[in-house]
Amino acid sequence: MKQEKADFLGIPSFSSAAPGRGQVATPERWLMRQLLRSLGDPPIRVRFWDGAEMEPVPGAARTTVVIHDRMALWRLLRHPMLHFGDDYSLGRIDVEGDLVEFLDTVFRHRPRARVSSPTRRQLLERLQRVHRNTLRGSRENIHHHYDIGNDFYRLWLDHEMQYTCAYFPDPTMTLEAAQLAKLDHVCRKLQLKPGETVVEAGCGWGGLARHMARYYGVKVKAYNISTEQVAYARERAAQEGLADRIEYVLDDYRTITGKYDAFVSVGMLEHVGAEHYHELGGVIDRALKPNGRGLIHSIGQNQAQPMTAWAERRIFPGAYPPTLREMMLIFEPYNFSVLDVENLRLHYARTLEHWLQRYDAHEAEVERMFDAPFVRAWRLYLASSIASFTSGKLQLFQVLFARAQHNALPWSRAHLYDNEQHKR
Amino acid sequence: MKQEKADFLGIPSFSSAAPGRGQVATPERWLMRQLLRSLGDPPIRVRFWDGAEMEPVPGAARTTVVIHDRMALWRLLRHPMLHFGDDYSLGRIDVEGDLVEFLDTVFRHRPRARVSSPTRRQLLERLQRVHRNTLRGSRENIHHHYDIGNDFYRLWLDHEMQYTCAYFPDPTMTLEAAQLAKLDHVCRKLQLKPGETVVEAGCGWGGLARHMARYYGVKVKAYNISTEQVAYARERAAQEGLADRIEYVLDDYRTITGKYDAFVSVGMLEHVGAEHYHELGGVIDRALKPNGRGLIHSIGQNQAQPMTAWAERRIFPGAYPPTLREMMLIFEPYNFSVLDVENLRLHYARTLEHWLQRYDAHEAEVERMFDAPFVRAWRLYLASSIASFTSGKLQLFQVLFARAQHNALPWSRAHLYDNEQHKR
Repeated sequence: MKQEKADFLGIPSFSSAAPGRGQVATPERWLMRQLLRSLGDPPIRVRFWDGAEMEPVPGAARTTVVIHDRMALWRLLRHPMLHFGDDYSLGRIDVEGDLVEFLDTVFRHRPRARVSSPTRRQLLERLQRVHRNTLRGSRENIHHHYDIGNDFYRLWLDHEMQYTCAYFPDPTMTLEAAQLAKLDHVCRKLQLKPGETVVEAGCGWGGLARHMARYYGVKVKAYNISTEQVAYARERAAQEGLADRIEYVLDDYRTITGKYDAFVSVGMLEHVGAEHYHELGGVIDRALKPNGRGLIHSIGQNQAQPMTAWAERRIFPGAYPPTLREMMLIFEPYNFSVLDVENLRLHYARTLEHWLQRYDAHEAEVERMFDAPFVRAWRLYLASSIASFTSGKLQLFQVLFARAQHNALPWSRAHLYDNEQHKR
Repeated sequence: MKQEKADFLGIPSFSSAAPGRGQVATPERWLMRQLLRSLGDPPIRVRFWDGAEMEPVPGAARTTVVIHDRMALWRLLRHPMLHFGDDYSLGRIDVEGDLVEFLDTVFRHRPRARVSSPTRRQLLERLQRVHRNTLRGSRENIHHHYDIGNDFYRLWLDHEMQYTCAYFPDPTMTLEAAQLAKLDHVCRKLQLKPGETVVEAGCGWGGLARHMARYYGVKVKAYNISTEQVAYARERAAQEGLADRIEYVLDDYRTITGKYDAFVSVGMLEHVGAEHYHELGGVIDRALKPNGRGLIHSIGQNQAQPMTAWAERRIFPGAYPPTLREMMLIFEPYNFSVLDVENLRLHYARTLEHWLQRYDAHEAEVERMFDAPFVRAWRLYLASSIASFTSGKLQLFQVLFARAQHNALPWSRAHLYDNEQHKR
């Protein structure tokens, strides 16, 4: 079991018997300084295995990255975006001080990307080729992340198993309350009315579909290619007496058929790939009635950059957070009007803080389910996601849209904030 | 005076002594049918000078376009997007029934544009070459529209001389109330605090600057290249005791200097030209403090298409309503985070309905100021603008943004809708 899961993360194992100790050499220090410079000289400390230290901004560091052996150093120098993650997972690199603060500091100091760099574009294309989101590629990519066990996700997600950004109109809310607030926020934006039909692309464990069917009186057809998630979703809908109002379909969004009053997709676009946005737009165009509304909720970014190699390889194969500009490739060809875009970046940071706290509280169980590298890898993934949102590296866009000629629009967005009206 | 203003619109005069009457010929009817087909066969009626009629959808027409002579017909067939407007202005083409309804019907039936058509792109580029928004070109373009006389605009704008989309949270509001609501909506989105500094690009007659200085306690530096508008704005600020808090600068937005807590631009982007968005982003990047916020309010569209030739030539030289995708060219290179996009399309239709009503009530005065073709041209411009917004041909985007690392964000947009808090 342990071995299988270690394979699953795909980190190549190599002897952890410390190779080539001795003192850190002058050329090694010089190369590390170049690396720090390329990162914009963040105020962190580097400590080598021999106790030697280095600080780009002397006296300013509150966190320290510890490199435990020479091989980890050379791997880091060669491909920092991949090997920091791998060697952190294997325990050959450590961080002293708060992990989130360390990552936030590093992300915050990174020089601004040059948007149209051809190198970056090529890199992006190369990455996307590796884990292409063809019908089959998508199944493999989604299986990698979402089918590692409902029991694992249950340890640290909320009761509705929402594995997407919650909505904290009050930042002191519990995670449970904020996830319900998110579900309501989405439903209100879509102005769902009893008796309407909704198609959902990428339904996770089915929580939004249950919420819409239960509280908004709609019929939902919800698509997902994760077998574990769909099994869970079907079982829960049956238990909760919602099976007659929700049909969970184990299939790709590209196979959606029928006409609906609303299209909704929360947290799927990250797995679609920019090269398929035109196709996704076509699916929506086919599925929406003339007065239909649509909402896409997705992680995004300000500038087109590939995910870090480590996250793309070990955590989310085939994933890519689009820019708003790229998202428009879904809407423009079909003359959809974008009605409302809300950026919930800091809400995702807050959501992830809750997840990380719960995750850490269940560390021992996670290690029993998997192994120590898995525990560290997922901690790094959750922590670096927090830092990505707090440092503005990632965004969270909720985009509401409708057909260009749909004029039955509310005169303001006040209805989203009228809590009296929406009390259950 | 009259002659000068007729020259001003730039419609080439030609003899209005009816050239070549007689019956409409079969080839002429055939060509007109082709034109109607290319427009998607809208349910309108065409009546020729000899009384003959044509209906793409028999019995469905509620409005009729009347072509008074053969030359108007041939001009229309040759370049409908230019000559419909010109010959309507000259009274050689009429519309029976409601003008807005006629235009809405035509716009609504137009086949969906193919987004990436190279022909369209070329056309767009050609148009933009004619009225390039260089520093000098912009001055000429802006002078053409905005310097035709404050007295003229005073006839049909509100007291604050807001010549941009109002905000009607209640659609029965007066225009005056809706324009104030717009000003507040913008200020609230920007979260202006007393003592802060604001730079405004394209300030019109200075109403937003006055509103911000008076009710939000900020200092404003407002740029505009329309001499008549700036003269008016300065005078009014002096009269109202706001001159110490507002500096109106008669200069191009590209010359903005200094650092500000907020950048705002309402209704200027339409005149910037997509080829200058990168430059505009650079101006904003230079002007905004680290915790600064920005808002751009602009007419937009779902698909990149040039303005109709008539509007671009006679009404708004150099103007172009961007898609959201194009607007991102302002923000992406500088790593700005888009926080909120609101589409106020139907609010602009409502605003224009108010303007048209007031305009029509002052028809005699407008004709005294200018001449009959001017009266008809501007009526067509206002009516076709209404129809553009009701048919979804045009959008109105309010885009709020900030630097990527600015984390002092409100946890929800409820503060925009909390009317108790904002009562004056």
